[in-house]
Amino acid sequence: MSVCLLYVTAASRDEALALGRALVEARLAACANVLDGMTSIYRWQGELREDAEAVLILKTRSELAEAATARLCELHSYECPCVVRLPIEGGNPDFLAWIAAETGPVNQG
Amino acid sequence: MSVCLLYVTAASRDEALALGRALVEARLAACANVLDGMTSIYRWQGELREDAEAVLILKTRSELAEAATARLCELHSYECPCVVRLPIEGGNPDFLAWIAAETGPVNQG
Amino acid sequence: MSVCLLYVTAASRDEALALGRALVEARLAACANVLDGMTSIYRWQGELREDAEAVLILKTRSELAEAATARLCELHSYECPCVVRLPIEGGNPDFLAWIAAETGPVNQG
Repeated sequence: MSVCLLYVTAASRDEALALGRALVEARLAACANVLDGMTSIYRWQGELREDAEAVLILKTRSELAEAATARLCELHSYECPCVVRLPIEGGNPDFLAWIAAETGPVNQG
Repeated sequence: MSVCLLYVTAASRDEALALGRALVEARLAACANVLDGMTSIYRWQGELREDAEAVLILKTRSELAEAATARLCELHSYECPCVVRLPIEGGNPDFLAWIAAETGPVNQG
Repeated sequence: MSVCLLYVTAASRDEALALGRALVEARLAACANVLDGMTSIYRWQGELREDAEAVLILKTRSELAEAATARLCELHSYECPCVVRLPIEGGNPDFLAWIAAETGPVNQG
């Protein structure tokens, strides 16, 4: 059983919480961690921009990562949201088993 | 020399700091980073729950990851703490060497 | 096209922002995320120390990671800054393509 972490940015703490709740509710993720007070720096139309954002970290099974990413992109207020997937190569075995138990089957909608 | 990052959640900033100090003190990690003000979302007995938590990030040698995880689980206030291990595939070579120098031998106790 | 995440610590939010701006400006990273209010724990001359720091997360192409790391080490106020590289194994395909589009050629200076 392979698990992974999704690192997502959102326009606000409220959006990050709403996305996290939706994904855990749908069993597309076992849990969500929201960190507020992030500042994002990027280039927009040739100029550097800085925005206040929040970070959302999701833990799920690797085989659900694609469906979770698609759902995040549907729900997100951004046209091209930052969703990147980081491999988890180990950890507390009971916690890894809990991730598997809390997430649904593939194609569960 | 392979190094990794442990992503851990704790019930409070104080618990995250205590875990971080214990692991660095025991040379099971070279350093610890604590981020406070995290909100955790998960399912508990069929209901969504949200808790205030803190994040603890540890950097250590991969061969110590199992011992570090076991120690975190012993010290942690949760029955099934979130400890997940992320691979580090590069970085500042001097910092990677410092992680190796600051961590102890395997089976050091 | 392979992308990665650089996890960096800095002495302050201001330093993390300055490093993030410099790397995005130079197209050595597509974007930067700064999280303030981190506490770092490490051993210094045999004693545990704790410092207030900030976290800087950069997203870039893997083939630029070495140049980005070298630039971070040049600009950083620390002699041996924490720069570790985490693999990204997937995510929002449009966002991954955006990282590629926003970063420069290798050896671009």
